[in-house]
Amino acid sequence: MIIVLNDRISTDEVKNVKDYIIKTGARIHESEGTEKKILGVIGDKRDLDQMALEAFPGVEKVIRILEPYKLTSRKFHPRNTIIKVKDVSIGDLEPVLIAGPCSVETEEQITDIAREMSEKGVKILRGGVFKPRSSPYSFQGMGEVGAKWISEAAKKYNLAVISEVMEISDIDTLYDYVDIFQIGARSMQNFKLLKAIGKTDKPIFLKRGISATLNEFLMSAEYILSEGNEQVMLCERGIRTFVEFTRNTFDLNIVPMIKNVSHLPIIIDPSHATGRTDLIIPVSLGGLAAGADGLMVEVHPKPYEAFSDGNQSLNYDQMNDLLDAWEVIRESVLKLRKKKIEEIEKNVSDYAG
Amino acid sequence: MIIVLNDRISTDEVKNVKDYIIKTGARIHESEGTEKKILGVIGDKRDLDQMALEAFPGVEKVIRILEPYKLTSRKFHPRNTIIKVKDVSIGDLEPVLIAGPCSVETEEQITDIAREMSEKGVKILRGGVFKPRSSPYSFQGMGEVGAKWISEAAKKYNLAVISEVMEISDIDTLYDYVDIFQIGARSMQNFKLLKAIGKTDKPIFLKRGISATLNEFLMSAEYILSEGNEQVMLCERGIRTFVEFTRNTFDLNIVPMIKNVSHLPIIIDPSHATGRTDLIIPVSLGGLAAGADGLMVEVHPKPYEAFSDGNQSLNYDQMNDLLDAWEVIRESVLKLRKKKIEEIEKNVSDYAG
Amino acid sequence: MIIVLNDRISTDEVKNVKDYIIKTGARIHESEGTEKKILGVIGDKRDLDQMALEAFPGVEKVIRILEPYKLTSRKFHPRNTIIKVKDVSIGDLEPVLIAGPCSVETEEQITDIAREMSEKGVKILRGGVFKPRSSPYSFQGMGEVGAKWISEAAKKYNLAVISEVMEISDIDTLYDYVDIFQIGARSMQNFKLLKAIGKTDKPIFLKRGISATLNEFLMSAEYILSEGNEQVMLCERGIRTFVEFTRNTFDLNIVPMIKNVSHLPIIIDPSHATGRTDLIIPVSLGGLAAGADGLMVEVHPKPYEAFSDGNQSLNYDQMNDLLDAWEVIRESVLKLRKKKIEEIEKNVSDYAG
Amino acid sequence: MIIVLNDRISTDEVKNVKDYIIKTGARIHESEGTEKKILGVIGDKRDLDQMALEAFPGVEKVIRILEPYKLTSRKFHPRNTIIKVKDVSIGDLEPVLIAGPCSVETEEQITDIAREMSEKGVKILRGGVFKPRSSPYSFQGMGEVGAKWISEAAKKYNLAVISEVMEISDIDTLYDYVDIFQIGARSMQNFKLLKAIGKTDKPIFLKRGISATLNEFLMSAEYILSEGNEQVMLCERGIRTFVEFTRNTFDLNIVPMIKNVSHLPIIIDPSHATGRTDLIIPVSLGGLAAGADGLMVEVHPKPYEAFSDGNQSLNYDQMNDLLDAWEVIRESVLKLRKKKIEEIEKNVSDYAG
Repeated sequence: MIIVLNDRISTDEVKNVKDYIIKTGARIHESEGTEKKILGVIGDKRDLDQMALEAFPGVEKVIRILEPYKLTSRKFHPRNTIIKVKDVSIGDLEPVLIAGPCSVETEEQITDIAREMSEKGVKILRGGVFKPRSSPYSFQGMGEVGAKWISEAAKKYNLAVISEVMEISDIDTLYDYVDIFQIGARSMQNFKLLKAIGKTDKPIFLKRGISATLNEFLMSAEYILSEGNEQVMLCERGIRTFVEFTRNTFDLNIVPMIKNVSHLPIIIDPSHATGRTDLIIPVSLGGLAAGADGLMVEVHPKPYEAFSDGNQSLNYDQMNDLLDAWEVIRESVLKLRKKKIEEIEKNVSDYAG
Repeated sequence: MIIVLNDRISTDEVKNVKDYIIKTGARIHESEGTEKKILGVIGDKRDLDQMALEAFPGVEKVIRILEPYKLTSRKFHPRNTIIKVKDVSIGDLEPVLIAGPCSVETEEQITDIAREMSEKGVKILRGGVFKPRSSPYSFQGMGEVGAKWISEAAKKYNLAVISEVMEISDIDTLYDYVDIFQIGARSMQNFKLLKAIGKTDKPIFLKRGISATLNEFLMSAEYILSEGNEQVMLCERGIRTFVEFTRNTFDLNIVPMIKNVSHLPIIIDPSHATGRTDLIIPVSLGGLAAGADGLMVEVHPKPYEAFSDGNQSLNYDQMNDLLDAWEVIRESVLKLRKKKIEEIEKNVSDYAG
Repeated sequence: MIIVLNDRISTDEVKNVKDYIIKTGARIHESEGTEKKILGVIGDKRDLDQMALEAFPGVEKVIRILEPYKLTSRKFHPRNTIIKVKDVSIGDLEPVLIAGPCSVETEEQITDIAREMSEKGVKILRGGVFKPRSSPYSFQGMGEVGAKWISEAAKKYNLAVISEVMEISDIDTLYDYVDIFQIGARSMQNFKLLKAIGKTDKPIFLKRGISATLNEFLMSAEYILSEGNEQVMLCERGIRTFVEFTRNTFDLNIVPMIKNVSHLPIIIDPSHATGRTDLIIPVSLGGLAAGADGLMVEVHPKPYEAFSDGNQSLNYDQMNDLLDAWEVIRESVLKLRKKKIEEIEKNVSDYAG
Repeated sequence: MIIVLNDRISTDEVKNVKDYIIKTGARIHESEGTEKKILGVIGDKRDLDQMALEAFPGVEKVIRILEPYKLTSRKFHPRNTIIKVKDVSIGDLEPVLIAGPCSVETEEQITDIAREMSEKGVKILRGGVFKPRSSPYSFQGMGEVGAKWISEAAKKYNLAVISEVMEISDIDTLYDYVDIFQIGARSMQNFKLLKAIGKTDKPIFLKRGISATLNEFLMSAEYILSEGNEQVMLCERGIRTFVEFTRNTFDLNIVPMIKNVSHLPIIIDPSHATGRTDLIIPVSLGGLAAGADGLMVEVHPKPYEAFSDGNQSLNYDQMNDLLDAWEVIRESVLKLRKKKIEEIEKNVSDYAG
């Protein structure tokens, strides 16, 4: 940590700051520039609060050098984390396909989608039963009965199930029905929920908050890992910007960035990241070519009758088009992924050696 | 609702859309422009999902005309809502001052602040005991014992208490200790929490999410009102933008905008909206002059020792400076507020007459 | 255009609005909903100012139905625009590679880069000689002598040259030295420059402004086309958002969106869109897989000695890595592009038929 | 400047970085933490390019300690800059009122507005004759004849004139007609225009770019000052964010921030900062109470007939309302301003002493 002192700081004020730091067990390295004096703090614990120091009279700015995350860092865990769900490996060579409706609506709807998706080679079925909706007057999800329907439909077609929990009590309600718990974008900083889900033994699908920075995103994952659950996959689903032609702005940059700094898998959600069916296919291809470990796509037999998110759901024909396009580039993307994994292995052994 | 049709839409596709709308009980008003055909939907229920219609083949765009909120709208409730907490009236002529530490830390700390604030004329004491922190390694709040301390300190100095609930079970935990429940920015779209808090009989202080639009903000209030609790005050605490010199960007525009479209009080939080003590006083004055119904400010005897948010907490001397500055403009601001209330009354009687 | 009237509008006020519209030659289609009255304006000219109408007493909102751009629209020009520069076709099947230093620094530097790029198969050499720099104390470019150097270097290795004009007089200065004029992000709304460049006969490379919407971007292209120059290629180079880990946020969504609504080629600039060399390769691949018509990349033999943008410039080895990775997916991307072109042809003939 | 080294940097790579820095004449202060090694660079010139250093192999991050601006800094010039235009002092105790139409339209229009504004106590008349418009099909301004009209109208009513220059040749065209040159938001980083205008002897009104950071804004002012023209006033006119209910988001925080770090006057433009007449008055009051040195407001006798910006222009009655409201708080705002000026004086003499 670097502390930049105000050029009008008094001797007493400098002493105060230094005493405070030394009391925490850290060491200080002083350095005087032509215009500013700075204090380098060495051996500071990660939880030494950067903000408080700026409140000292005479301190101009505090700059953190270390990234705040630890368990989610690739430094801590150099190889990719691979998460096994039924017979799927997430984070491994082959990108994973997750598809299904925004909401579970009826037993028939989810069963039909399950059948169709399994025929298309999808391995994980999505479907919300607790729905976070901006309006109290909108459809709020089918609740536990919906969970039962999706669970049975998935069993019939040998699919794994992912569904969202909105609050702590939903964990118990959904536990027997789902294989992966989803934490939605609006809950990314529901820290009590993160801690609770971190105590479970199921994989977690953590969506990036609509205006989350990289550090905030990884720190939310860190909440889960620090409770003992290391099966966390991240999801980029678009961020909120000034841009008007899409529901959200897909931040492609974060896909390779996560691969650089963290060992956790990163999945993309082109449905939310665009909000428009006409962009889902090219954005999916772009994300996979840039290194994403999988796709989560909303699919519905009749999007215009969907209870939610119809305008960003593919119909079955469009889903075929997506899979056809993916098939065109799949082999070459796998080649790129294989090379990347080899580089990681080389780095690990170089560093170990 | 206006539905803009694609210029290549087929006759069958037009029929599909129209049949669907008519089935919901709404009427259609067709209109053919030189380049586009549009359908005006009349008598549509507020919950007719705008998104789904865009999924119809041939539909280009759907435009909502009605604002989505109802109970929070000034049209529905033309006079200002005034919320009574002990002997304070929030939303009335006199702006309210809420102050206190970010976190309750020790019994001595909160008691000292309570004493100091009561001497300064503050009527409501803030202090968090459940703290939403980005890092799992940061101080997470004192929990119920902290609630007990702040409740006793407030009683001693005849202050009301406001504190944050992070999840549903916190409501019961805090119920006997606080006078106002705060919903933090990160929980603004924790809809299950909003519903639960809407069933209580205590006033609610709802903070705007860090990237919430006006409609989203009011719809979150609508969740609470629609459960029966009408004592909701809103809080602008800054939004996330590209701007680098402050923690958040204070959106002053929303203060008069809320007064225009809603009857609910709007309080500003200059501590979070700036993140810098050197900006709190001028921003407070600006917000009050623009019509805010009150201030919530973080205060700490020794900000540099605060467990959280020290860098945006005023010390006692700075709090004095704020109150002195406010005193300079208070009378003239009250004159402006009085005139505004008279205008509302005139509007109400004009419209009624 | 749709005009939503305030529910308290008087009969006289309605008349005023209608008279005003009729005077412009447009027709009105009235429609009364349960809560709002709306006026549909038919046959409005594109330049009927939407803003002014909102200033009429009693008008609540004005909603434009038509997109504001015309010459840049795919409706107006259904097939892709293909721009020929020397023996390169931009906007055609094969994506184009543009590479070179941020700034032309010395004759040796640009000649060495030209040689290296030509060996690597690059066809267009970039290099700025007028540099828009945030600081007046930073290197401002070599000016005309730099243009001479890059022109000669390019000639020697049979490359085309692209370089930026910052103001009108730069057009004449650079005319004989460059094959493509670049309009930088900061000049995207320098409308007098757009008009002037629209009168030239050279292809234009128009970069998206750092916070330009889709409509603004296309309207800036419209400025150039409306002056008679139809050889415009667009460039997505990242937008400004709250995101902290990259210099800009690459908006991948706009790549397929531009292909949908416009006939102009869209190139991506992963150097500016990330600001980090470690992200350039994956983002390049992602953009190309999503349909971009080419790449513009900053390359420098010794990035750490570059006069500008060193931190986002690839060195020669990294440029090799980029080309190797592109080679892996190139064939499959060409297949996707070919299919897309066939779809466009089919659409054109369907519509014509 | 602080250079954070990668924990895998080799000894040779460290040497390279150090040699490079020493060659520039700066000194190095090394410091080894428990996880990172950092180099403190002392005596670095302001133009040592931070970006390039990040391109060195083994360098993780470069952090600048010094702010990039110098001539615009309050450290360099502790007292407020006061700019005299005719008999008005901008940046002094009394905030300045600038008003007029968005565009000069006809001789009658501008003369009528000049008369009305002078009666209301306004001292500076605004009116654009070169208009930067998003669409090539929109009204582009009256050009020089409009400048003649506004100049004569102003003379008749003893007002000063401010009008915008869009490119270098506009400076000569407008020179004899205007008292203050405006640089619009879209031109804030038109660096060649900034340099040219910096060579004139007239005051400059520099608007913040729609997505300009504080540093970028001040560095654009620095361009002008570094050419010798010190009469620069800054203008906050709203920034682009995700917020949907206003045209721009007014960044109130920057008003007191500019007063802290710079000596230049800061004016607010509530017309552009809101885009809605119903918010102009409260936002104006808020800005003035927070320390703004003046207002620029768009006024038009019939906003709905304005050639541009009608929806954010006050009519004469609304302008009266604004002035009445300002009169209510004016005395108390002057008291606050007086105290602020005294504090500055005290700081200056303390530091000098």
